[in-house]
Amino acid sequence: MEIRRVAGLDRAEAGDLTFVANAKYYGALATTRASAVLLGERTPAGVTPPATCAVLRCRDPYSTFATALGFFVHAAPPARGVDPLSAVGPGVTFGDDVSIGPFVSIGAGAAIGERTIVYPNAVIGPGARIGADCILHAHVSVRERVVVGDRVILHDGAVLGSDGFGFARQPDGTHMKIPQLADVVIENDVEIGANTTIDRPAVGETRIKAGAKIDNLVQIGHGVSIGERTLLAAQVGLSGSTVVEEDVVMAGQVGVAGHIRVGKGVIAAGKTGITKSAAPGEFLTGYPGIPNREWRKAVVIFRHLPELKKQIEELEAKVAELEEKLIECRTSTDRS
Amino acid sequence: MEIRRVAGLDRAEAGDLTFVANAKYYGALATTRASAVLLGERTPAGVTPPATCAVLRCRDPYSTFATALGFFVHAAPPARGVDPLSAVGPGVTFGDDVSIGPFVSIGAGAAIGERTIVYPNAVIGPGARIGADCILHAHVSVRERVVVGDRVILHDGAVLGSDGFGFARQPDGTHMKIPQLADVVIENDVEIGANTTIDRPAVGETRIKAGAKIDNLVQIGHGVSIGERTLLAAQVGLSGSTVVEEDVVMAGQVGVAGHIRVGKGVIAAGKTGITKSAAPGEFLTGYPGIPNREWRKAVVIFRHLPELKKQIEELEAKVAELEEKLIECRTSTDRS
Amino acid sequence: MEIRRVAGLDRAEAGDLTFVANAKYYGALATTRASAVLLGERTPAGVTPPATCAVLRCRDPYSTFATALGFFVHAAPPARGVDPLSAVGPGVTFGDDVSIGPFVSIGAGAAIGERTIVYPNAVIGPGARIGADCILHAHVSVRERVVVGDRVILHDGAVLGSDGFGFARQPDGTHMKIPQLADVVIENDVEIGANTTIDRPAVGETRIKAGAKIDNLVQIGHGVSIGERTLLAAQVGLSGSTVVEEDVVMAGQVGVAGHIRVGKGVIAAGKTGITKSAAPGEFLTGYPGIPNREWRKAVVIFRHLPELKKQIEELEAKVAELEEKLIECRTSTDRS
Repeated sequence: MEIRRVAGLDRAEAGDLTFVANAKYYGALATTRASAVLLGERTPAGVTPPATCAVLRCRDPYSTFATALGFFVHAAPPARGVDPLSAVGPGVTFGDDVSIGPFVSIGAGAAIGERTIVYPNAVIGPGARIGADCILHAHVSVRERVVVGDRVILHDGAVLGSDGFGFARQPDGTHMKIPQLADVVIENDVEIGANTTIDRPAVGETRIKAGAKIDNLVQIGHGVSIGERTLLAAQVGLSGSTVVEEDVVMAGQVGVAGHIRVGKGVIAAGKTGITKSAAPGEFLTGYPGIPNREWRKAVVIFRHLPELKKQIEELEAKVAELEEKLIECRTSTDRS
Repeated sequence: MEIRRVAGLDRAEAGDLTFVANAKYYGALATTRASAVLLGERTPAGVTPPATCAVLRCRDPYSTFATALGFFVHAAPPARGVDPLSAVGPGVTFGDDVSIGPFVSIGAGAAIGERTIVYPNAVIGPGARIGADCILHAHVSVRERVVVGDRVILHDGAVLGSDGFGFARQPDGTHMKIPQLADVVIENDVEIGANTTIDRPAVGETRIKAGAKIDNLVQIGHGVSIGERTLLAAQVGLSGSTVVEEDVVMAGQVGVAGHIRVGKGVIAAGKTGITKSAAPGEFLTGYPGIPNREWRKAVVIFRHLPELKKQIEELEAKVAELEEKLIECRTSTDRS
Repeated sequence: MEIRRVAGLDRAEAGDLTFVANAKYYGALATTRASAVLLGERTPAGVTPPATCAVLRCRDPYSTFATALGFFVHAAPPARGVDPLSAVGPGVTFGDDVSIGPFVSIGAGAAIGERTIVYPNAVIGPGARIGADCILHAHVSVRERVVVGDRVILHDGAVLGSDGFGFARQPDGTHMKIPQLADVVIENDVEIGANTTIDRPAVGETRIKAGAKIDNLVQIGHGVSIGERTLLAAQVGLSGSTVVEEDVVMAGQVGVAGHIRVGKGVIAAGKTGITKSAAPGEFLTGYPGIPNREWRKAVVIFRHLPELKKQIEELEAKVAELEEKLIECRTSTDRS
């Protein structure tokens, strides 16, 4: 059998390898046209594809699928070596087997680790240090003296080390700029999305810890620390000096106040506003973010507020009526 | 009469052409200093500008105004031809009359359609296909193998085809990257705003259908489909695998959950969070998004919650009092 | 004594200068390892650092700290002059002592003021005018004919003058583009964050007034006016034609509707949705934005809505019971 492509279950055709990791798709398996399917070791015996589809059993079909994807499709990095159309400052050091594309600018004294790939038009500032096996996509800005670990992926237009938003209000109402020239450190195995911005602080450091994954258009304020393996979805924004511990998950458009601590394993649903420090393991939702269970119970009532208001008004009318009747009643009792 | 400029009603001077499309500006027309005004065919007879201002009647003053604008002001594309300061890979094909600016990088095997304009410092990846009459502004990234139709406009810094945010959690808590190397297709007549990001999926495709218009800083997750003529305002974010049907309108900062369907003609007010599939024609507001009419009624009560709470407490006091009185009353009745 | 670095109070070591501007950090001062500290003139006499730490008194420790920062750390601009790897169109004028990095593209007839620094890969469109002492970081796009004042800082990837989001709906449902080619003016002393986008209108102008500071990933719609000294934090979005007066402060992810006026000195908390014009001095929160004091009182009740609902239901039950008892009571009274 020849496998020519890897495809999702709904689109798989003859010649495709597909996978089922989630029980809710077992039903769709019966009619797949894929030539092979990855199934978990514990997939129930009754769940089988048509006879035309081979079954490959594995511990984790989703991860195995990811591995298979890597066999079939490939990115297209610039050629090995330093493109003659790049601008490389004095004292720049390159590890072995780097690929540096055209119109890349690398400032004086920067260091690029071995096998690191830099796509066209990226800019690496003076004194920046990029580790080994990194991928910097087009239009990335790594500002001066930023430190990037190994196996880091930076997507198109990501900015590392732009000035934090720090000003001192003067007596005449104008804003004096606080120079933002301290450290930005991106640890190993971090991925940073397209057009995401990571600010540099005045003092101390902004740090993204090992294995954290950050999606597109995310704002990381100056002096923020992001914990190991934390996941930040697109358009999340973190204000300055906030500490996010490890294994946190924030869904899209979450906003986090400055100078707070978000504990290990916290989960925040989309659009949550985290306004104060959160204990480890909390699942927050809403603005301000409150425990998800509480929020769910409250929010279903929100849309019924008009009825609640009406109920209260009716109660008020009834109680007034009762009061009156009771007076009548007591009067008649007194009379009797 | 010489018309030298096109201007809005409030700023129009002698020599300017202006327009009135909305009845609420009829009043301001009486005092305009414009030399000419575009009015609709059905503008009431009494609505007239000063004698110094000529009247041009047309079916749709706003569209005619747009046409007039095109006569007076012009963009400034790079010169016809391929700038010698560009980097063009092997096997790249150009249609007639392209304009490719300096420091543009075009990867191997890419195709650029006729009359397409590429502003300076844009990057087009290997194997990408760009149609005819497109405009790619500065710093656009079109990643490898992305397909772009005809008459598409991509604003500065837009990214097409960055990796979707897809990871498989491993037993040790780390995140294994799912390669995101499948298709991104931008159909004809699409416009994509500055610094907007459109992600590439692992399998299947991300597709922006014909005539859709997307504003700045929008996030389109991997595997999303955007319907024909849909309008997405700035900072909207769509999570992965969501389908948005045709003629949808989302105002600024709307967020949409993943794996859902937003029906034809849905409207979402600014900042709405669409958390589940929406039927065609719904008008959603709030978080989670609920029908606008319902939301409006509920939200006016939200700010009166403290009074509602007080009313309930007063009712409770009164009812307790009534209960007591009733017991007294019954006791006295019993005694009587 | 030799001062080698400037550091925050929590990280200061021997050889560091630090500062305390906020009374809540007085306690931490007792154990600092810094060699010198900036304290305000009115710092209480009892608040003193260890004997190893010199005290420097000044009117405003935070501003003095900012000044001190400028002595120790420096950015790393491109070399003086115009890099030979740049692309400069005909008729471009440069003031004295400019620094123009490699792969910078400057369109025909543009003007760059004296001492202005342009980092690598920035693009300045034809006819744009940039003032003196400006800093344009890498990948900035200044589109054609945009006017930028003096001492303006534009961070990496910022886009000035992209097309506003303006379309006229046609009878067949398609959207006709309204050309957006009017003016964008950035006044003196403005700072604009990384990947922020500022749109150009069809007519009139988009204007950022003197001393305004705009953070990263902010969207400024076409025809918007931002007042003097206004501060917009990251991911704020302003819809078209809105006027923001002077000294306004918007926290992160605030959204503002189009065609409204936000009065002088308005403050908006994070994530606020400003849906209608706001009077000067208002402090808004929530969606829609209401006075902060009102919002705070209402939102604490939001999470107790389930209890409120229960209280109402209990009241209803009790009132029904009372009604019944009252009837009994009256009946027995009548009987008696």
